Amino acid sequence: MAAAKRIRIDGTKSRERVLEAAIRLAAIEGLERLSLSRLAEAAGLSKSGLFGLFGSKEELQFAIIDKAREVFTQEVVMPALSAPEGAPRLRALCEGYLDHIALREWPSGCFFASVAAEVGGRPGPIRDRVAMDQKQWASLLRHSATRAAELGQLRTDESPAQLAFELGAMLTGADIVYLLHREPEILERVRSALDVRLGSGRTGGGEKRARGRARR
Amino acid sequence: MAAAKRIRIDGTKSRERVLEAAIRLAAIEGLERLSLSRLAEAAGLSKSGLFGLFGSKEELQFAIIDKAREVFTQEVVMPALSAPEGAPRLRALCEGYLDHIALREWPSGCFFASVAAEVGGRPGPIRDRVAMDQKQWASLLRHSATRAAELGQLRTDESPAQLAFELGAMLTGADIVYLLHREPEILERVRSALDVRLGSGRTGGGEKRARGRARR
Repeated sequence: MAAAKRIRIDGTKSRERVLEAAIRLAAIEGLERLSLSRLAEAAGLSKSGLFGLFGSKEELQFAIIDKAREVFTQEVVMPALSAPEGAPRLRALCEGYLDHIALREWPSGCFFASVAAEVGGRPGPIRDRVAMDQKQWASLLRHSATRAAELGQLRTDESPAQLAFELGAMLTGADIVYLLHREPEILERVRSALDVRLGSGRTGGGEKRARGRARR
Repeated sequence: MAAAKRIRIDGTKSRERVLEAAIRLAAIEGLERLSLSRLAEAAGLSKSGLFGLFGSKEELQFAIIDKAREVFTQEVVMPALSAPEGAPRLRALCEGYLDHIALREWPSGCFFASVAAEVGGRPGPIRDRVAMDQKQWASLLRHSATRAAELGQLRTDESPAQLAFELGAMLTGADIVYLLHREPEILERVRSALDVRLGSGRTGGGEKRARGRARR
């Protein structure tokens, strides 16, 4: 029993190690183009060791998406849940996304945006899965925008569903543009838009700074 | 001379035929992952015939980008130039982009957004080229927004550079999301945003429709 448990724990550790390497490699090479030889090398395994852990390339691809979702949840969603609901939480989700794509350790911006661009034109189970994850992120933004409207935190001419759509699309677009240029101005422009649409949500002169930025 | 000229014309025709096939294949498979065997087959050529026309895979990739740019210019930029300058032209550029990504013949949305996502994490001449093309598109949007401000067509609290950035990012983000879901609502949401930011720019009750849409 103890030996079987240790093998299972070792297997889990190996899977984690492979997935951490895989997610970085897939962010650069793409999920479908991902080279199993390079992945095995990066994870310090043989190629057959890799298949021993994941069974098939498709199973590995789904495991990578699961892991990417876990990272996204930890880095973007969870911290935002400690912000007050409504506009502050919506802002925190957007800010978390910007911090996430600006991370140096993350060489290829938002994993989901890149994979969506990669597999969007090719129907199949991977595209369906990525589409489902995208819907859940969009729902999260929309839910927060709706709460913000209920709490009277939005401009009266602002439709929550429309606002959530525009912010979500702008974040994804900014990710792609930032990927190409790595210019901090891109992230600042998104923050200016957030200031205008959601209020600055910051303490200490945020309003004034917000207005200054938005008019550049 | 006549024979040499005919060979040149035939070569040009073959290049065009290959590029038309290549741009569709690259939109689905990606520019770097593009299979030369499948491309040769799609274009009715041998693989060595392909190399005879383009020399190297990189040369072919640059030729594909040139061709994609030509298509984008014809479909999105040129029609917009017949709109009056300022806000109507900015709106026409954005509408042209939406029509472009909604085209059924175009299986993978905006070529440049997909390629940006693909190569953005990998420094090199292809990324530099795509980054340059993206900058030119952004400049075009910004130039039209600046003219719109000069002509008094924007809301007074609207910064043209900020507006151009937000519209550009929203279009790119909408392309990625549309690629995944193919829902007309996505394009309608962008049009609602354009109505609010630029005025409806349509005749016959556009203003009213605009307001109705934006508040959904």
